[in-house]
Amino acid sequence: MAPPIPKSGPDMAVTVEAPAAPGPFVLVCEHASNAFPAPWGDLGLSAAQRQAHIAWDPGALGLARALARRLEAPLVAANQSRLIYDLNRPPHSPGAMAARSEVHDIPGNAALGPTERLTRTEAIYLPFHARVQAELARRLAQGQRPVMVTVHSFTPVFNGQPRAVELGIIHDAAPALAQAVLAESLTQTHLAARLNEPYSAADEVTHTLALHATPMGLLNVMLEIRNDLIATPEAEEGMAELLAPVLRAARARLEAA
Amino acid sequence: MAPPIPKSGPDMAVTVEAPAAPGPFVLVCEHASNAFPAPWGDLGLSAAQRQAHIAWDPGALGLARALARRLEAPLVAANQSRLIYDLNRPPHSPGAMAARSEVHDIPGNAALGPTERLTRTEAIYLPFHARVQAELARRLAQGQRPVMVTVHSFTPVFNGQPRAVELGIIHDAAPALAQAVLAESLTQTHLAARLNEPYSAADEVTHTLALHATPMGLLNVMLEIRNDLIATPEAEEGMAELLAPVLRAARARLEAA
Repeated sequence: MAPPIPKSGPDMAVTVEAPAAPGPFVLVCEHASNAFPAPWGDLGLSAAQRQAHIAWDPGALGLARALARRLEAPLVAANQSRLIYDLNRPPHSPGAMAARSEVHDIPGNAALGPTERLTRTEAIYLPFHARVQAELARRLAQGQRPVMVTVHSFTPVFNGQPRAVELGIIHDAAPALAQAVLAESLTQTHLAARLNEPYSAADEVTHTLALHATPMGLLNVMLEIRNDLIATPEAEEGMAELLAPVLRAARARLEAA
Repeated sequence: MAPPIPKSGPDMAVTVEAPAAPGPFVLVCEHASNAFPAPWGDLGLSAAQRQAHIAWDPGALGLARALARRLEAPLVAANQSRLIYDLNRPPHSPGAMAARSEVHDIPGNAALGPTERLTRTEAIYLPFHARVQAELARRLAQGQRPVMVTVHSFTPVFNGQPRAVELGIIHDAAPALAQAVLAESLTQTHLAARLNEPYSAADEVTHTLALHATPMGLLNVMLEIRNDLIATPEAEEGMAELLAPVLRAARARLEAA
């Protein structure tokens, strides 16, 4: 079970599970939660909207936890909906506090002023990324070379278009780990795995990688799993059972090179 | 005058002067101080060594403050010697807690173990860079595009070799502001200004730029002033009087482009 989520203070926005885990991977789940805590509340969204993929990445937290157990990895996860602050976007991005997502207007984000944007940035973005940076820096200081993996899910149908890809493997400036994960996925699994689908860095979805892994020269990759494949706890465990060996083998390829 | 430096807690390592200053520049001075506070103390160095350029960048803080006043800029400055932790190096760099600098052995840094490296990283590196990130993020959240300038000085003679360059203008991945500062320096001043001298990114001296400016797409530059040109308060003021218009004009070139 996850530790209780603090209701206020610098750790309100972020949960770190197993911070002392000994494995080489550090997992990050920016879109783990569809909670709409005070002081923001539901942003004027219906219950159905708050359950939908626009509010979070369904299945991503369960998959990330199942991967973390198998990889003996720490997991840094968000405690609130991406619609309050999307932690994979910098503070100046319109998508950080999106006024519209897919076909949905977000009433509580309409015409946000600079004061509210500052408040959310200080309450959510800064503490979350400070924790990610700390987890990486602590390992670097002790002579380890952590490998960063961000875990996401995507909707099978977007703007009415079905998506065939099942596992998207996305990179930012350094493609090495993504390429190795693709090769291992195609060898070890029957998943329809594709590089830089359904999104790529050009869609501005690699902020977390660019902010933390690139400046340190760390191996890194963003995983996007189609959310119908991780729709139950059993499916999340099954997907982790497939992907943990893929990640281990991909890292081993590069460490040996 | 600077505010008093806290003796402990998360702000022990860093001072932010004029955090609410309204100008577009954010100044950073990683090597501002030659203080050797507890619990580290003098690392076994002599008084002369603690005054020398290996311990800090003489004149850099005075110049940075004089620039900050003219540019109405916040200034983020270190509170301790670079020999305790060099804030322009990541935690895994041997130079972060150097065992040797130029021709000097640093006794207190000989054979540091992972526990001491972790302690210094958590006490100094993480709080300092969290403050730099916060100053930039707050401005970005409010719709501003801050410009990051790091302020350094270098010794006129290094390993016995005199250096002719007076103003070094150094860039990381994005050269635009450095090139504009060079052009304005050559037009507005008689300084011997050079691009990427006496160091360059290849010497791993651009960590702060890579960590904060590159991921946000911000204009950024590292200034290196030969320290004999800023050896008195009057000289620091005089250099700031030269360089503040250079920085303003360089930014204006790029904002207009």
